[in-house]
Amino acid sequence: MSAAFQDWMKTIQAGMENDMSAYLPAASALPQKLHDAMRYALLGGGKRVRPLLVYAAGNLFGADAAALSRAAAALEMIHAYSLVHDDMPCMDDDALRRGKPTVHIAYDEATALLVGDALQAQAFAVLAEADTLPPARQVAMLRLLAQAAGSAGMCGGQAIDLASVGLSLTLEQLEQMHQLKTGALLRASVVLGALAGKDLDAAELQALNDYSRAIGLAFQVVDDILDATADSATLGKTAGKDAADNKPTYVSILGLEPSQALAEKLRLEAHAALAPFGDNAQRLRELADLIVQRKA
Amino acid sequence: MSAAFQDWMKTIQAGMENDMSAYLPAASALPQKLHDAMRYALLGGGKRVRPLLVYAAGNLFGADAAALSRAAAALEMIHAYSLVHDDMPCMDDDALRRGKPTVHIAYDEATALLVGDALQAQAFAVLAEADTLPPARQVAMLRLLAQAAGSAGMCGGQAIDLASVGLSLTLEQLEQMHQLKTGALLRASVVLGALAGKDLDAAELQALNDYSRAIGLAFQVVDDILDATADSATLGKTAGKDAADNKPTYVSILGLEPSQALAEKLRLEAHAALAPFGDNAQRLRELADLIVQRKA
Repeated sequence: MSAAFQDWMKTIQAGMENDMSAYLPAASALPQKLHDAMRYALLGGGKRVRPLLVYAAGNLFGADAAALSRAAAALEMIHAYSLVHDDMPCMDDDALRRGKPTVHIAYDEATALLVGDALQAQAFAVLAEADTLPPARQVAMLRLLAQAAGSAGMCGGQAIDLASVGLSLTLEQLEQMHQLKTGALLRASVVLGALAGKDLDAAELQALNDYSRAIGLAFQVVDDILDATADSATLGKTAGKDAADNKPTYVSILGLEPSQALAEKLRLEAHAALAPFGDNAQRLRELADLIVQRKA
Repeated sequence: MSAAFQDWMKTIQAGMENDMSAYLPAASALPQKLHDAMRYALLGGGKRVRPLLVYAAGNLFGADAAALSRAAAALEMIHAYSLVHDDMPCMDDDALRRGKPTVHIAYDEATALLVGDALQAQAFAVLAEADTLPPARQVAMLRLLAQAAGSAGMCGGQAIDLASVGLSLTLEQLEQMHQLKTGALLRASVVLGALAGKDLDAAELQALNDYSRAIGLAFQVVDDILDATADSATLGKTAGKDAADNKPTYVSILGLEPSQALAEKLRLEAHAALAPFGDNAQRLRELADLIVQRKA
């Protein structure tokens, strides 16, 4: 990782922390407990992979900074709400997230439910308030976000994930599940970032879809590798959870070394997809590297 | 209630059933259990008060039918998701809704959580796909829907409601809670219906806000009256639940007869607010009457 890339990441991560705080009601605004818990769920942690993808894709076409910030915040809010609901007792029942107690532990279950619901609404509000965008493109971005978040995207992937506990999935079924559960939102991050710059032609959209598919799968393969090999303190969440929950993973289906080889292959596919964009795609390339080479 | 008004309602209710079915993925689409449960939660019941308000307000300015259908469906999806989550064990823990087992009873808790999450996303998708609207007005409608659904609207009202169990609220605090919990979405229904017709000037918006405030409160006052006086079979949900849950209501604070007088006063206020719109507001007037005079 180059120092320039690390500086770029830190700048965006710090900027997002400020911007997302400003896009949420103050912790003192009524109802206080809900707003306090929304801030707890969204701020102060996380790798901000989706915002980084938004900004990196924004670099392709010189997108407006205000629009990128709102698109990035909207995606991170959807992601954060999904983690809050996913950690609840009726789903994964997890007590630790980003090194902190999960929302239903730190507050209570009803608050966790409402925090997730309100963060999803806030995501759409923040993007709908992006008044520097041409309205027609803004509508397209809102549509894409909604589709990626819903039953044909993230929520659908969660449902398949739930239904697959204890089953032996094929590699193809596992990929399908992850393309919805994680991939849809990662793809939306890339495409929304690009759309913050300009309308996309078919070839541009195809290249971005190919890149997104590769990093989406790579992200999940590496998650599975880390879940099997790293410890909870490093991950900031409970390690070994998938095996304990009897969930199918790349490591359980392919084994560890073939999973590592697959991640590397997907990294190269991501690079190849970016060829048409030349130097403007440098940050997207570095993010593909980061996703595959990360340790947590 | 005139026969013409009843026919109008039936036409819209039947039309919404068809349209909302078409706006949801098929029950056979993967993941099937989630899509089946989404249809169970949204279709086949309910008074469709929010869609009726959308269409009635659309009458003010001759709004396009396709845009009204999408706005109405979006509002009903937000409403339906809030009921699914509200009925869950960590919230109101209710087993009966619209005369049927609630979603977490008919399916399971994890599915109920995902159904609510996916219906919220679908609401924004359906409205974002309303391609007969001028994009700038469509963005304004999406913004308004998101604000009404979030922590400064419905979710915020739910949080205040949860926090108020067992407390003795003043009439003012009770009104504030309901203006968020129910009022925000009813107001959004009226304003979105009008916006499906044209941009609103300040006087029009003020008149619609006044109408919405009156019917929003009237709706809740009548809900409290019915909860105290009707039986579960008539209501299609558990009667006497508020008293059993030790929740403050208009009836518990004001008494039954003063609550009935308040509902009638609010009905007249709703009528007065509509004066500037003349005959085009007939359906909105009839809906105010319906909200106050309903028996379930």
